[in-house]
Amino acid sequence: MDLLADVSNQQNSEPGSQISHLALDIGGSLIKLVYFSRNNDSRRDDDQQKSRNESLGVSQSDTSQPVLEGRLHFAKFETSKINDCLEFIRSKKLLLGGFHDHTAPSSDKIFIKATGGGAYKFADLFKEKLEISLDKEDEMDCLVTGANFLLKAVHQEAFTYLDGQKEFVQIDHNDLYPYLLVNIGSGVSMIKVDGDGKFERVSGTNLGGGTFWGLGRLLTKCKNFDELLELSHQGNNRVIDMLVGDIYGGTDYAKVGLSATTIASSFGKAISDNKELEEYKPEDISRSLLRMISNNIGQISYLNALRFGLKRIFFAGFFIRGHAYTMDTISVAVHFWSKGEAKAMFLRHEGFLGALGAFMSYEKQSLDGLMVHKIVQRFPISVSSAGDKIYCSLNSDSNQNDDSIECSVYGT
Amino acid sequence: MDLLADVSNQQNSEPGSQISHLALDIGGSLIKLVYFSRNNDSRRDDDQQKSRNESLGVSQSDTSQPVLEGRLHFAKFETSKINDCLEFIRSKKLLLGGFHDHTAPSSDKIFIKATGGGAYKFADLFKEKLEISLDKEDEMDCLVTGANFLLKAVHQEAFTYLDGQKEFVQIDHNDLYPYLLVNIGSGVSMIKVDGDGKFERVSGTNLGGGTFWGLGRLLTKCKNFDELLELSHQGNNRVIDMLVGDIYGGTDYAKVGLSATTIASSFGKAISDNKELEEYKPEDISRSLLRMISNNIGQISYLNALRFGLKRIFFAGFFIRGHAYTMDTISVAVHFWSKGEAKAMFLRHEGFLGALGAFMSYEKQSLDGLMVHKIVQRFPISVSSAGDKIYCSLNSDSNQNDDSIECSVYGT
Repeated sequence: MDLLADVSNQQNSEPGSQISHLALDIGGSLIKLVYFSRNNDSRRDDDQQKSRNESLGVSQSDTSQPVLEGRLHFAKFETSKINDCLEFIRSKKLLLGGFHDHTAPSSDKIFIKATGGGAYKFADLFKEKLEISLDKEDEMDCLVTGANFLLKAVHQEAFTYLDGQKEFVQIDHNDLYPYLLVNIGSGVSMIKVDGDGKFERVSGTNLGGGTFWGLGRLLTKCKNFDELLELSHQGNNRVIDMLVGDIYGGTDYAKVGLSATTIASSFGKAISDNKELEEYKPEDISRSLLRMISNNIGQISYLNALRFGLKRIFFAGFFIRGHAYTMDTISVAVHFWSKGEAKAMFLRHEGFLGALGAFMSYEKQSLDGLMVHKIVQRFPISVSSAGDKIYCSLNSDSNQNDDSIECSVYGT
Repeated sequence: MDLLADVSNQQNSEPGSQISHLALDIGGSLIKLVYFSRNNDSRRDDDQQKSRNESLGVSQSDTSQPVLEGRLHFAKFETSKINDCLEFIRSKKLLLGGFHDHTAPSSDKIFIKATGGGAYKFADLFKEKLEISLDKEDEMDCLVTGANFLLKAVHQEAFTYLDGQKEFVQIDHNDLYPYLLVNIGSGVSMIKVDGDGKFERVSGTNLGGGTFWGLGRLLTKCKNFDELLELSHQGNNRVIDMLVGDIYGGTDYAKVGLSATTIASSFGKAISDNKELEEYKPEDISRSLLRMISNNIGQISYLNALRFGLKRIFFAGFFIRGHAYTMDTISVAVHFWSKGEAKAMFLRHEGFLGALGAFMSYEKQSLDGLMVHKIVQRFPISVSSAGDKIYCSLNSDSNQNDDSIECSVYGT
């Protein structure tokens, strides 16, 4: 098997770069893409390299010359607009990030790593439109691989968020497991992770990002998820939610620890308001929905963490989108239900776990490839007998389309 | 303190009956009333009594002559139509079911037992319109007292519901505790019950009956809860919900035990359908909503039962209303999440736990009253040194307004 990126004389859309390792995560709502572009002219002078390493927190003992430099790119499309995604892949010549399988009968067939349900659903479409085969990787496997990669390889990846304060958490790589991974896509998966490739999907909920967006679209006529999320900023959920104080005449129900401002029933005020849908502000509806779903996910996650004695809960998936109020609600829910004993943590590259995991799966199949081109997750502090290292510096916001992480691949 | 029902020469709305022990549970959405009407002409011949006892499963050794016979009445009103409730109380002269408190400065003041947040919120309204004071009882306390009463005193009260099959469960009174009581009103309370008066509210969720009704009203323009529930009968949630099969191109995600028909994301199809709200059938929306909320309650309930090692989960509250699909969804959720280890159980008088509990609380204050009029929960199989017994026969559907249970009060 050859990595297509190894093929010389290839045409690349970006001058001076070579595409390799395109991986897809095709979910119910979104398609996530990850691919690596190698800089051909990546040799830097020593000073540049030194300051670079310092900014990455890489100690001098780790600073052998990189054998490869480039960027890890992230992009996303709505699944319903899959043709835009196909066009993006075609125009950027991302097909070159696939591989040939010499063991297959027709070895000129290009394979692309893909995960998520859409890897099954849209396999024929990819074959028909782009003449590529999707090499399917298990969804949970990819989520876990992606999460483990981010938690170990990327500096300042995990953080807590409470009262508007973001605080990065230093993850001790030797004390990472076990943890609960909560991936909030259209639906929600909760995975108990015990190590590399060691995990179990222990729970989930069908109240996820698809519910927020689906109900939100019906209730507010918003055209897309981000618009709906944006609306929630200015909203006031108390206009629609029935609070404990609404039932108790403004007072707390102190005996069981429910304050007057606790939501007793999401959307409960709509029962007796005698107002039509149009009389509610979309902002208020959006906020109420967001709070309902975030709080519910936080609660079920905590109950599952408790069940398995897991101290850490990492929340990921494209539902979050670095949105302050979403993270705040999830954090408050975990804090409330755990009586302060558990903490919600978030990941900066929250939406790309599955795609990153599929990307990592190239490694397994490329062991016979050229070492210099191999992309392996290898971390400064982990001890390993073979492979390369990727250091990543985050220099842009991962929530933008076609975002990227600068990467240096180090030889062993 | 005298029970007003003891006052002779009182006027009653129903000929031949005396009202006593009116109790209210004023929730966020509904007001529930329980009161007892005593038959003045209640002496029966021996044959009648014998056949009656047999039908109630009362053994001959328990069949001393009743000292009191009558009916326990149940009624409900929407909280937003509280004036209808006040008028009902006035017209039926239910005020006579209150009591005077001789220890209070003005002993002519009438007190009525009341629980729920509305006992606080509407206290002034009751004073102003009916000149009665609400004697507040703790909500959780009342729910538990009501549940314990029903589970011990009422024949064929608890049942399981699966695949359209209702099966009554024989409750061993000596092996009732501990259990999880899930009361689904506007919001949901989950209470671990360890004995009479021994309990803790361990969890809850703000996705309850108020959410179903509130969201349903906004999405379908239905005018009331029962209409919305009725609609769900003909609905198909798969039109709006995103199923695992929708993501996976019709196949299961078998590796983690998710079949193609599992709901991945409630309302998730509304994301990509490009349909306006008006293009969805209210029936389908109602069914999707009902399934979303029932399933979520079932899941959180099971996780809490698991946490405390509780084998039995009883679901109550006016959200259920004996509705087949609601019970089926909750049952399936508990079955699914517990992998068949736990069973959901339901109560025939599901909506009146709080009101019954408030009703029972008269007992505490009437110990100095006349024994013959005292209403005490006392059960054939329980051993007790003092008090009376109530046997109840269920001869009508508890979901109707102003329903009643026939009762016989037995002297010690």
